[in-house]
Amino acid sequence: MKAPLIDNLQYCNFSEKVFRQLRAGGVDAIHVTIAYHESFREMVLNLEQWNRWFEQFPDLIMRGTTAADVRIAQETGRTAVFFGFQNPSPIEDDIGLIEIVHQLGVRFMQLTYNNQSLLATGCYEDEDMGLTRMGREVVAEMNRVGLVVDMSHSAERSTLEAIEHSTRPIAITHANPHWWHPALRNKSDTVLKALTNSGGMLGFSVYPHHLAGGTNCSLSSFCEMIAEAADRYGAENLGIGTDLCQDQPDSIVTWMRVGRWTKGIDFGEGSAGNPGFPPMPDWFRDNRDWDNVREGLGETGLSGEEVDGILGGNWLRFYESSFGAG
Amino acid sequence: MKAPLIDNLQYCNFSEKVFRQLRAGGVDAIHVTIAYHESFREMVLNLEQWNRWFEQFPDLIMRGTTAADVRIAQETGRTAVFFGFQNPSPIEDDIGLIEIVHQLGVRFMQLTYNNQSLLATGCYEDEDMGLTRMGREVVAEMNRVGLVVDMSHSAERSTLEAIEHSTRPIAITHANPHWWHPALRNKSDTVLKALTNSGGMLGFSVYPHHLAGGTNCSLSSFCEMIAEAADRYGAENLGIGTDLCQDQPDSIVTWMRVGRWTKGIDFGEGSAGNPGFPPMPDWFRDNRDWDNVREGLGETGLSGEEVDGILGGNWLRFYESSFGAG
Repeated sequence: MKAPLIDNLQYCNFSEKVFRQLRAGGVDAIHVTIAYHESFREMVLNLEQWNRWFEQFPDLIMRGTTAADVRIAQETGRTAVFFGFQNPSPIEDDIGLIEIVHQLGVRFMQLTYNNQSLLATGCYEDEDMGLTRMGREVVAEMNRVGLVVDMSHSAERSTLEAIEHSTRPIAITHANPHWWHPALRNKSDTVLKALTNSGGMLGFSVYPHHLAGGTNCSLSSFCEMIAEAADRYGAENLGIGTDLCQDQPDSIVTWMRVGRWTKGIDFGEGSAGNPGFPPMPDWFRDNRDWDNVREGLGETGLSGEEVDGILGGNWLRFYESSFGAG
Repeated sequence: MKAPLIDNLQYCNFSEKVFRQLRAGGVDAIHVTIAYHESFREMVLNLEQWNRWFEQFPDLIMRGTTAADVRIAQETGRTAVFFGFQNPSPIEDDIGLIEIVHQLGVRFMQLTYNNQSLLATGCYEDEDMGLTRMGREVVAEMNRVGLVVDMSHSAERSTLEAIEHSTRPIAITHANPHWWHPALRNKSDTVLKALTNSGGMLGFSVYPHHLAGGTNCSLSSFCEMIAEAADRYGAENLGIGTDLCQDQPDSIVTWMRVGRWTKGIDFGEGSAGNPGFPPMPDWFRDNRDWDNVREGLGETGLSGEEVDGILGGNWLRFYESSFGAG
């Protein structure tokens, strides 16, 4: 069976239109964010919305909880949807909620979103204290039940400690190398080596603030960066996590940045002059543009097999070993 | 494979001791109450406790979500534990929570516990308005996902309307016929005929307030009542739901009765002079006494096959057709 196409991070304003574009683009599976700052109960409301969509659009999408669901989606012409949190807020201060959210289908959880959490330090803090006492307990419990640790928005030391403390490979679902574009959210060579040496996965982001040149980043620059990363870290540890936030109003990027933790404004990766969602590059406007990425990767020195892995085969293998009880 | 032994209602203060008694008594499956008045979040805390027990005692108990789990429990010498609510409080005012609690393994839900709920009328109200607007929507959604409607604590008209409105057979998990013992919680012949004529199940209770003679009810009186019910309603629609509340302090029966709905005292089936849990009859003190019930039933005119059905085979068949999507 041919390698699946998997995008391991999207936060679109989902709708029948987006689901049809996923099918038009041949996307077999996506990992979608269902919590940024939500409490447990608020996150459950988001799950309820997905349950309605699964009921309303059974020919387009299906719930994904195991790697086998990606194959079922491929065989039946649908997109499997996997859930993740960008922040541990839905587990509150309660380690028992880790197994509960896993029962509800959640498969990825970031230990922190930009700020300090109960578990670790985010990439926007001045100080980085590493994993907290609860953080170490939570990583062990996530390892036990099969909930993947995601450190996309975490600070350097916290990320290295998560890689070290976790007994199972972790993920950075959506970020790029700092050596290509030195944004605060992009990852150091040290982190990427530690991540991939332990079997962890990096998903390359297409969010303009993570791209060299931003919205104007060329497809060839993006793909050459991936080829260089394959050379440094091994192509088998690489995938895509576009961070596509299609059809979201700018109020959502404000919510993502400030949640309820400040009464003020924080522009995050944006600025006072550019506070909203940045326009996507013209070679990846939405899910119908995956052929561009495939062609771009094909024009680097990467083999066809390596390209297939980066576009989904590697995530599938990671899913196979990550989502079950440890 | 021999018929399983299933008790379709227990609310013990569970512990390793009780789990070992379940094994000693050869109980293959139990349906346990995990909510009386709990909010959604509070009910999840109870699920978390069960997750810990499943982790701590994997040789004694296992999570039950399908009929096949009863057979797995039988084959592996464990007790499968199925969850239910005695009140719809955990779904709050949110119909979307029905599918969520089903995903979390809940398989039975009473529409009301003694009082009026958002869905129907309880058996202690002066007036019985039948199913509410939300009640009708909720029954349809329960039918869709495979969550069994339980009317054990509901009023007459509400019960009849639930039977009528539900497209799938419902259950009265723990109650006895009013013609045997005219307690408020026991069920009229009209209700029991409508229930069983539609394929629904009645679980006989051993809770003393539901027994003719209370704690002093004889085993033969209890078993002759069951034989008479088999004659009236068909043995295949009958099972057991003991309502065993072993090792619970009396503060728990107060919680069951008053929850947070009154600042006063309500003695429910008890009285000021007898406010606590009544002592169990001497022929069913705990899960090690199932052989007494089997012998007692054998001494009535019931066939061995009918006794096997009443002690678990009938619940198993009901589980097979009730817990999946409708």
